[in-house]
Amino acid sequence: MKRSSIDRRSILAGLLVSAASVPLASLPALAQGDPLPSWNEGQPKSSILDFVAAVTREGSEDFVPASERIATFDNDGTLWCEQPMYVQLAFALDRVKELSGKHPEWRKKQPFKAVLDNDIAALAKTGEKGLVELIMATHAGMSTAEFEKIASDWIKTARHPKFGRPYTELVYQPMLELLTYLRANGFKTFIVSGGGIEFMRPWSERIYGVSPEQVVGSSIKTEFKIDNGQPALIRLPAIDFVDDGAGKPVGINSHIGRRPVAAFGNSDGDLQMLQWTTLQGGRRFGLIVHHTDSEREYAYDRKSSFGRLDKALDAAPSNGWTVVSMKDDWKRVFGFQ
Amino acid sequence: MKRSSIDRRSILAGLLVSAASVPLASLPALAQGDPLPSWNEGQPKSSILDFVAAVTREGSEDFVPASERIATFDNDGTLWCEQPMYVQLAFALDRVKELSGKHPEWRKKQPFKAVLDNDIAALAKTGEKGLVELIMATHAGMSTAEFEKIASDWIKTARHPKFGRPYTELVYQPMLELLTYLRANGFKTFIVSGGGIEFMRPWSERIYGVSPEQVVGSSIKTEFKIDNGQPALIRLPAIDFVDDGAGKPVGINSHIGRRPVAAFGNSDGDLQMLQWTTLQGGRRFGLIVHHTDSEREYAYDRKSSFGRLDKALDAAPSNGWTVVSMKDDWKRVFGFQ
Repeated sequence: MKRSSIDRRSILAGLLVSAASVPLASLPALAQGDPLPSWNEGQPKSSILDFVAAVTREGSEDFVPASERIATFDNDGTLWCEQPMYVQLAFALDRVKELSGKHPEWRKKQPFKAVLDNDIAALAKTGEKGLVELIMATHAGMSTAEFEKIASDWIKTARHPKFGRPYTELVYQPMLELLTYLRANGFKTFIVSGGGIEFMRPWSERIYGVSPEQVVGSSIKTEFKIDNGQPALIRLPAIDFVDDGAGKPVGINSHIGRRPVAAFGNSDGDLQMLQWTTLQGGRRFGLIVHHTDSEREYAYDRKSSFGRLDKALDAAPSNGWTVVSMKDDWKRVFGFQ
Repeated sequence: MKRSSIDRRSILAGLLVSAASVPLASLPALAQGDPLPSWNEGQPKSSILDFVAAVTREGSEDFVPASERIATFDNDGTLWCEQPMYVQLAFALDRVKELSGKHPEWRKKQPFKAVLDNDIAALAKTGEKGLVELIMATHAGMSTAEFEKIASDWIKTARHPKFGRPYTELVYQPMLELLTYLRANGFKTFIVSGGGIEFMRPWSERIYGVSPEQVVGSSIKTEFKIDNGQPALIRLPAIDFVDDGAGKPVGINSHIGRRPVAAFGNSDGDLQMLQWTTLQGGRRFGLIVHHTDSEREYAYDRKSSFGRLDKALDAAPSNGWTVVSMKDDWKRVFGFQ
C-alpha cells in the first residue's frame, strides 16, 4: 500500500478559502414515483436511471448479478460539504484548542501555535509536515473506543461556519436519494474516502445508511493490548494507509475484494477510483460532482485547496463519466433548503 | 498494524506431519427443524442455541440489534482442514514446481531446491525466512486478477493427500450449518484468517456463503497502475499485514469497524480475537474447535505446527469459551462422510 505522501498537498492553504454568501432555500419537488426527486431532469439524471435499468435487467447483455453490484462513493465533497475546509480538519483544530491546556509547550511550537493564534497563514506555512503533526497529536494516543466517543461528542456540537448547522446536516440530498435508489436496486454502497476511517464510521450509518464495515478510509496504526483484563486497540502516532488517489483502488481491493461497477467522486483524489471502476469490464458508471453553486453551497474546482478537480474533469468526456453541475442539475443541495 | 513477525513459526515443520488413517463414513441424522443437525446434543450445541436465542430476543437484557450481530470465523482448522499443512502452503509448493522451468537457478537455491527435491527436512530448516521467500516468489509479481485466476485454477485440480478430494470439499459440515444458522438469525458472518485474503476470496462465497468483502486476511502490498489504458493492481513482493494473533483484532477493526459479539477459532492464532470479542460488553460467545478426531480428520493441539492450540485452550474455562471436541460433538465432520 502506498503510505508515504498525503496527496492533499495544499490542504492547509484551504483554511484561507473564505465562507461565501447565504444559502437560498429551495423547495423539494417530489415527483410521484421518482426515485431521484431532488435531481433536475437532464443528462446526469437520465444517465443514472439508464445505467441502473441496464445492469439490473435480467437477460440484458449489461446485466450484473446483485452480489457484484458494488458502488463506491467518495465522502468529502461528494456526499457532504468539504468547504471551507475538510470537516476532519475542523475537528483537529478544535481538538488542539481543547487539548492545549495540557500542552503549554504548544503556545510556542508550530503547527500548534498557529492553530491557537488562529494564524491561518502561519499554519499553511507548516505544510504537509505540520498537518501530519496535527493529526498525530489529535487522533492518536487513545483507544479506538475513546476516539469514537471524542469524535461523536464533537460532531454533536460543532457547527459549520457558513450554514450554522451540524456537519451531519450538510449532506447532499440528491446523493442521499442516489444511495437509497442504488440500494433499492440491489447495490451495496460503500464510502471510499481520503478521510479517516474511524472518523466517519460513528455516523455513517445514521446519516448515509452505510454501515461501518462498508466504510473505507485512511488510517493510523493500531495495537492490541490487554490492560487489567480489558482488551483495547490503541491508536498509534503513525500513518498506516492513505486512501486517496492511487490508494483508493488499493483500499477498495483490500476492503471489498471486488471491482466496483459504479463510482462517484468530486476531485482528482477520485481519479484512480473512477479509472479502476470504469476502464475495464462491461457496462460501468462514473460520476463527478462538480461544485458550481456559490449560492446554495460553494463553487470551486481546478485550484481549490480542498477537493481540487482538474485532471479528473479533463478526463471525464473521453471516459464517458457523467459530470453533475450542482447548480444546474440539483433541485436542492441540502435537505434543510 | 503489526507486520513484522509471522506468528506461525514452525509452519514448515508441519510438512513433517504425516497423513493418518482412512476416514469413516458417518451418516447425517437430520432432526426435523434442527438448525444444527450435524451436531450431537451436548454443551457446545446448547451453548450456541442459548446464545443465539438470548441475543435475538427483543426486550431481553442480552438483546443485540441485527446491525451489531457480527460473528467472526477463523478459516484454517475452524472452517476447513489445515492438516497435513495449510492449503495455501500446498498451493505455494505446487506453484514453485510449476514455475521452476522458468527459474533454473531454483535448482541450487533454498528454499526452492528443497521444494523441488521434496526434501521436507531441508525446507523446514529454511524457517520463517524461507517461508516468506516462498510466498513472495509464488504470490507476487502479477496483477490481482491474474492471481485470482491462478488460485482458482489450482483449487479446481488440487487434491488433499489424505482424502483425495478437492480442498473446497474439506469444509466442516457442522460449521457450515452454524454459518447458515447465524445468518438466518440476522448475523453477518466474517472470515478472519491468518491466510491470504486474496487466496480465500475466489471461493469463500461459493463454499461458505461469505462474500469477498466479508473476508479479512493477511495481505501483501499492491500498487495501482495503468498499462495501455488498462488499470491493474500489481501484487508486490512485500508483506502488508499479518492477520494472525494480535493482528486479528486490528484486522477486524480495520475491515469491520465493529467489535464482534461471537468469535470462532481453533488455535492460539485466534486467542486475541476471542479476547477482543468476549472480554467486554454484554453477552458474548467464544468457541474453539478442538481437533480430537484422528479417524474422521486429525487429532492435534498443543504441539502442532499448523493450528497449535495451547494458550487458548488453557484460557477457555476461565473465559467461558465453549470447546468443541470434534470427535464427541460432531455427528459428521465433512459433507461427504
